[in-house]
Amino acid sequence: MSDTPKEIDALIALMAKLPGLGPRSARRAVLHLIKKRALLLTPLADAMHAVGASARECLNCGNIGTSEICAICTDEARATGQICVVEDVADLWAMERAGVFRGRYHVLGGTLSALDAVGPEDLGIPRLTTRVKAEAITEVILALNATIDGQTTAHYIADQLENKVTVTSLAQGVPIGGELDYLDDGTISAALRARKTL
Amino acid sequence: MSDTPKEIDALIALMAKLPGLGPRSARRAVLHLIKKRALLLTPLADAMHAVGASARECLNCGNIGTSEICAICTDEARATGQICVVEDVADLWAMERAGVFRGRYHVLGGTLSALDAVGPEDLGIPRLTTRVKAEAITEVILALNATIDGQTTAHYIADQLENKVTVTSLAQGVPIGGELDYLDDGTISAALRARKTL
Repeated sequence: MSDTPKEIDALIALMAKLPGLGPRSARRAVLHLIKKRALLLTPLADAMHAVGASARECLNCGNIGTSEICAICTDEARATGQICVVEDVADLWAMERAGVFRGRYHVLGGTLSALDAVGPEDLGIPRLTTRVKAEAITEVILALNATIDGQTTAHYIADQLENKVTVTSLAQGVPIGGELDYLDDGTISAALRARKTL
Repeated sequence: MSDTPKEIDALIALMAKLPGLGPRSARRAVLHLIKKRALLLTPLADAMHAVGASARECLNCGNIGTSEICAICTDEARATGQICVVEDVADLWAMERAGVFRGRYHVLGGTLSALDAVGPEDLGIPRLTTRVKAEAITEVILALNATIDGQTTAHYIADQLENKVTVTSLAQGVPIGGELDYLDDGTISAALRARKTL
């Protein structure tokens, strides 16, 4: 597209780097933005600058906030003695949307991986051990993804915290609204093993 | 998500308005942007401001460029006497990517629609008639979408230009790489009607 202005080409190339957008949807999004310049393009650019200038990682839990210590860590009502360990900020947001956990979090920022040379220090696991003492934690809830990497990391953390604090993990089983016919064998056998007396 | 900073919530809400992104993918995109602040977030915001400040509609053809008359309309090598009529700038870009048309364009910006009160003036059809005379056009190629609205608009334009200039339209038939088994009945019957002697 030699005749497309270079500013537009540059914007399309950057938009195409967003997860979930390819070159085709990036072009569509850019045309949409140009059509809605006042309503969307300028506010979006301003919002990006605002986030770029203010967003930072919480020094305590790894959540994204706008101050050194995030709103969840400074909220005294959330000093419940419970820490929920999640892989990523997206998982923290998912837990918050569910709205049932009222304690604090610890965001690992990934999972242990020998291949990618990600060790316990990279995930802030020693810092988690320190927090357990400092914040008088009574329960660490592992809310890691039910993937091999997530479960390996969960086992490592459980080993580290053994005899120091109660370590629990999210239940595995049939999701709400799930139909057995569409579930994988692993989920069905996990649900059967963890069956409950009614 | 009462504990998410308002700057981040605002950015997610705006991102979710882009075509192809819903609330979930907008959250994912925003987290990705925050992680790649220097590489992606700031350049993207700057690129948006640059496009917002410079992009404008070509007064002649309706294409998006950075000057009053776009690069295609000012390129003397493209004064071939052919005008290709497209619905949208995205269609113009698609034609340019194909790289086989070397004339100029006329972007309608939509299709005729009684329901949405879109008339010939809104689509610049009188301006197209003026251009046909002013630019000594010998052929108007209708490259409108093969939808009902697109074809209605094509017939209207063909009527307006009757006896003034040769009006052609893109061929309809089996797409390259298309398998008959997966094609709809309409395409197959159009391809059969327009069959060619080998």
